[in-house]
Amino acid sequence: MLLRKSLLSKPACCCRSLTSRAIVYSEHGDPAKVLEVHNYELPKPQDDELLVRFLASPINPADLNQIEGVYPKRPAFTDKFKTPRPAAVGGNEGLVEVIGTGKQHMSMKWQLGQWAIMRRTTFGTWRTHALAKEDDLLPVKAEGLSPVDVATVSINPCTAYRMLQDFAKLQKGSWWVQNGANSAVGQSAIQMGRIWGYKSLNIIRDRPGSDEVKQQLLDLGATLVITETQLSDKDFMKQLKREHFQDEPVTLALNCVGGVNAINMCRQLTEGAHIVTYGAMAKQPLKIPASMLIFKDFCFHGFWVSPWNDRHPDERQEMLEVIFDWMWEGQFRSPAAKLNWWEPGQSDAEALAVFRGALENKSQKQVLCIDY
Amino acid sequence: MLLRKSLLSKPACCCRSLTSRAIVYSEHGDPAKVLEVHNYELPKPQDDELLVRFLASPINPADLNQIEGVYPKRPAFTDKFKTPRPAAVGGNEGLVEVIGTGKQHMSMKWQLGQWAIMRRTTFGTWRTHALAKEDDLLPVKAEGLSPVDVATVSINPCTAYRMLQDFAKLQKGSWWVQNGANSAVGQSAIQMGRIWGYKSLNIIRDRPGSDEVKQQLLDLGATLVITETQLSDKDFMKQLKREHFQDEPVTLALNCVGGVNAINMCRQLTEGAHIVTYGAMAKQPLKIPASMLIFKDFCFHGFWVSPWNDRHPDERQEMLEVIFDWMWEGQFRSPAAKLNWWEPGQSDAEALAVFRGALENKSQKQVLCIDY
Repeated sequence: MLLRKSLLSKPACCCRSLTSRAIVYSEHGDPAKVLEVHNYELPKPQDDELLVRFLASPINPADLNQIEGVYPKRPAFTDKFKTPRPAAVGGNEGLVEVIGTGKQHMSMKWQLGQWAIMRRTTFGTWRTHALAKEDDLLPVKAEGLSPVDVATVSINPCTAYRMLQDFAKLQKGSWWVQNGANSAVGQSAIQMGRIWGYKSLNIIRDRPGSDEVKQQLLDLGATLVITETQLSDKDFMKQLKREHFQDEPVTLALNCVGGVNAINMCRQLTEGAHIVTYGAMAKQPLKIPASMLIFKDFCFHGFWVSPWNDRHPDERQEMLEVIFDWMWEGQFRSPAAKLNWWEPGQSDAEALAVFRGALENKSQKQVLCIDY
Repeated sequence: MLLRKSLLSKPACCCRSLTSRAIVYSEHGDPAKVLEVHNYELPKPQDDELLVRFLASPINPADLNQIEGVYPKRPAFTDKFKTPRPAAVGGNEGLVEVIGTGKQHMSMKWQLGQWAIMRRTTFGTWRTHALAKEDDLLPVKAEGLSPVDVATVSINPCTAYRMLQDFAKLQKGSWWVQNGANSAVGQSAIQMGRIWGYKSLNIIRDRPGSDEVKQQLLDLGATLVITETQLSDKDFMKQLKREHFQDEPVTLALNCVGGVNAINMCRQLTEGAHIVTYGAMAKQPLKIPASMLIFKDFCFHGFWVSPWNDRHPDERQEMLEVIFDWMWEGQFRSPAAKLNWWEPGQSDAEALAVFRGALENKSQKQVLCIDY
């Protein structure tokens, strides 16, 4: 909503060559040190190419791990950006608008003004413009939605969607539980669970302001919200269970924390439950007692949305349409994001300062917005 | 084979009342302390009852955990054995022969001489005779097989069978890996894998005599056998992989050890692999790094044969028939067992001494054999 500044009024046109501004890196390491602003000339799109401009590009934790070199999927360093050393453009998630097409693309699908998101990771989304092949992009119909909402849908909300759908057979009224409930995935899962009629037990950290967070999650549709301290208090949990889900099975847990917290969460689950790990905020392994596997028949999975997307392009598109519908209907909203603007006339130093400001602010999801 | 002493020549008959000798306990605790010999009178079988005599009753680790009170499934203490205090009979696995039937059981299924195993756990198999309901017993056709082989099939070989069949889609030539490969389940799995055409990487402990164990497992059909020390040696494992399964996926691991050993074993697995835990010999939890779940997409399961049996009576019977067929054909043999005999004329003290001797001998699988 904040983004209605000028993006949607911008005319989609231009088949001349132009200059792209990008955040690039030539070696792995601390993002604050290895990332640089780089400008490079983009030629006119060739026959099978599309010229796109970026509207909004999120900064996700995995993007930073990728730059640090600790993420399994990484773009190759290449000469094609005309950098002094071979380099890659940062960022994996983003929304583009088609502003130019090669001769082969005079189809309905790739008209000027068409919006698209990245079909795969490693494209490099922290830039103003790019040349893309058709196969790089997934067209989206998202008229009337905020570009930031559309740009941020494909990692966190999609992760939440798949984890709630693909591991346990939840039905209307079924209970599920998650830790890190205030994360972007967690907030998405709460809303989706509410839409599908599931009941959620949500665990958040004990921090100043946790009452406020609790209220925000309840407003999104959380059934119950507790703190990690309450989770580790056996008497409190017995009482909570007695009052709210005494004889009702809890068959799914979503885990982005790990360590003791995750195992405490597992103790709330019913025999045969599924635990899906998608993060490790506590940086501790899951210490699973054999009895949880053998006698309680728990099944521990992981979920990573990137390879899922690669393997399920059709289901992905269907899922995105469902989520966009929810957004139109006002049933679902993206987790709040801080917008960081690149505007015409900024110097390289100013553009870098904007980006570094976004990197340093860890309190909220950050999105690079481009007003070009 | 050792058991052909007198069991098979014994005439199946008798519908009079008789005395059963049993190993009972009235409280949970150290088996060496709480187990006692108890004799009690069995009345004639009522209309819907069957009178059975036990031929062979294994002593499994889970039986001892049950007596210690740390196993989730436990028999209730009852007055029906006419003990001074309410008591339970120990043992869960066993082979019986029907030697008397109530009036309702004049069917082909329950003729005198019919062999049967326990349909469920907690029946109490460490005794000479019992009255049973039809629903307590699973009739088996096992003519010509050793009673000990039949008695010991339903826990360890069946556990191996299900774990190889139900978690990963192995095909002829597929690799799988296990630790604790010399356990009763491990030996069963090696043979079954060989029969199905799978290739096995087997991990054993470093102990005096491990070369001999290695040769025994190779003789059973193991493809490769290594020690825990070799498993933790990265260079050794790289070399082994290069020589034997460089580009071949390893998609299933069976774990009865836990701790570091289990995680080292997991490092040999291919993306998307399944790890099935059925024991915890190292008494250490599985410390699973989140990356194994998220990036390698490993799935950690547990397997416990008792509830599986309860839920799948028909598949269980089919599986037993397959295993008995293998035994007849000489393709599969039960892990070696030490036979401990109860014979007529033994005093209570002598019978208890035989049983305690079996409890104390932890080097081999122990079976209580009853020559009554």
